[in-house]
Amino acid sequence: MTRGRFITFEGGEGAGKSTQVRRLVEDLRASGIDVVQTREPGGSTGAEAIRALVVSGEADRWSARTEALLMFASRSDHLEKTIRPALQAGSWVVCDRFADSSRAYQGAGGGAEPAFIEALERAVVGADQPDLTLILDLPVAVGLERALGRGQTDTRFESKGLAFHQRLRDGFGEIARRFPERCRMIDATGSPDDVYSRVRAVVDPIL
Amino acid sequence: MTRGRFITFEGGEGAGKSTQVRRLVEDLRASGIDVVQTREPGGSTGAEAIRALVVSGEADRWSARTEALLMFASRSDHLEKTIRPALQAGSWVVCDRFADSSRAYQGAGGGAEPAFIEALERAVVGADQPDLTLILDLPVAVGLERALGRGQTDTRFESKGLAFHQRLRDGFGEIARRFPERCRMIDATGSPDDVYSRVRAVVDPIL
Repeated sequence: MTRGRFITFEGGEGAGKSTQVRRLVEDLRASGIDVVQTREPGGSTGAEAIRALVVSGEADRWSARTEALLMFASRSDHLEKTIRPALQAGSWVVCDRFADSSRAYQGAGGGAEPAFIEALERAVVGADQPDLTLILDLPVAVGLERALGRGQTDTRFESKGLAFHQRLRDGFGEIARRFPERCRMIDATGSPDDVYSRVRAVVDPIL
Repeated sequence: MTRGRFITFEGGEGAGKSTQVRRLVEDLRASGIDVVQTREPGGSTGAEAIRALVVSGEADRWSARTEALLMFASRSDHLEKTIRPALQAGSWVVCDRFADSSRAYQGAGGGAEPAFIEALERAVVGADQPDLTLILDLPVAVGLERALGRGQTDTRFESKGLAFHQRLRDGFGEIARRFPERCRMIDATGSPDDVYSRVRAVVDPIL
């Protein structure tokens, strides 16, 4: 059995990740590929229970370090119960957020030390790196306006203020420079169709 | 302001830790010392929310690695919100379980690699080591009988079986040998009065 491909989408709030994930998964399935669509934080029963602790409540409910530990706890469960079994069975996995979100949100945005995040990443993710990471990039003000316009109730991260979200965007840019083999920056301005054509331009060569 | 002393109690299920903690705290307070009594997992608002995820549910709900990440997430919050502020204000802290419980429960008992646990311990606890750790030691069958006789509802750890609890006891013995300056083994057989007199014999010299 050939191991499946592991594709992650990353980016700030309102970048349109869930729409792009859904469209890509539909097209992959239409072309006959078995795909598991999942998301973080969450993606398994235990990880979803941990998710409830981090996406709701006051913005300063957790320190960046505690939040990173919770995110990697949920990621550990998600890898064990969902991602590794799917890849080993030959399915592709398309995931809305993964470890780069911890680097950006708890590291660059929240101020947890890079060495702390990287130690957790090595211990929890290790060799299970994504084959491809698409980082949807958007000016912060545009993304927040989109995100808050969705009227969702769990807005703990959205409420962290412009300076946080600017550090987040810079953090994702730094990740793209640091892992050029794995990561591709996608301009997320314009319509969902515009963005999806940019996504396909990156994904098609590996199909 | 002199930093307060940090005393932890450790041991398997039914060893009588909470009784001994309560008696020691009462006596320390009676002698004029300001004491914060706390426990793990828990001891702060966030850590108690995480506790609810680990002490209830099926025995195999979490892998040992995921469980260790959750325990250190709750410990990070507990240190930030409760333990460090108390010690810095000059209070003593007496805590029912701390990082040695992760070494024993998720490491020796659960099978998480020692290097994984120790990396988390260094990153989260670091220099905030207890000044004194009292390990209450009891034959496994006696401890489980006591614990299950309490009729509590959150019995996820109690339900893990005799072999698990034997590895746990061996793990605590190994911890006592590894950290001889900090740890004291206390024979936890006999009445609460018997055990408490052994506790005082260890604590009195540092008073």
